[in-house]
Amino acid sequence: MIGRLNHVAIAVRDIAAASRIYRDTLGARVSEAVAQPEHGVTTVFVELPNTKIELLEPLGDGSPINKFLERNADGGIHHVCYEVDDILAARDRLLATGARVLGSGEPKIGAHGKPVLFLHPKDFCGTLVELEQA
Amino acid sequence: MIGRLNHVAIAVRDIAAASRIYRDTLGARVSEAVAQPEHGVTTVFVELPNTKIELLEPLGDGSPINKFLERNADGGIHHVCYEVDDILAARDRLLATGARVLGSGEPKIGAHGKPVLFLHPKDFCGTLVELEQA
Repeated sequence: MIGRLNHVAIAVRDIAAASRIYRDTLGARVSEAVAQPEHGVTTVFVELPNTKIELLEPLGDGSPINKFLERNADGGIHHVCYEVDDILAARDRLLATGARVLGSGEPKIGAHGKPVLFLHPKDFCGTLVELEQA
Repeated sequence: MIGRLNHVAIAVRDIAAASRIYRDTLGARVSEAVAQPEHGVTTVFVELPNTKIELLEPLGDGSPINKFLERNADGGIHHVCYEVDDILAARDRLLATGARVLGSGEPKIGAHGKPVLFLHPKDFCGTLVELEQA
């Protein structure tokens, strides 16, 4: 069912500093920072040959990564995103196994403009999993 | 400098259960479990079209992931591994920027039979980074 690893998301306190680490220290290609107020984050993409790293900085008091950064003061790996061909079929298959989908269970449009869902970390090895329609 | 994302490593308490989650629930191709006593872990690889997920279960009292699992009872994302063409050149470039390499600073042979180094999470957005010779 799951296909490509679309991205690994890393939550950071200071996205300008994190961009410099990935660009200058690790020598990777790094996008401009883009504020995504509807998702409560500012994003930078680190483009690797086979996938990407998504750097996330909180945007606003209700940011979904505020709590994570309270628990992880230096930042850290926040989630992995796997692509699926059919997000509704994937969701229904997962629900049938007893796995929990976060929120309403209806896909939302994610930071890349495609439908996404998040799965409960307790059901997936302590890992927050995002599914994105390929 | 950094190239492909070689793998994302997820530490788990029960690798048989984690394998079932990735194989049966998420529908991915999953390798057999392999004990790697010299690394203090048992590994399973989840093969995705563009990269892999490495599931890690502690093996022995001195396992390098024991502490992580004490702090993360359900398991969690442990590290990311980026490929580099020349691991000694990469190390020297990183050291010149003031970044910290863990251990002796000399590459060891990793779980894939290639030279690897680990970088200090405090210098890389709270993320444990493994570099592997491509």
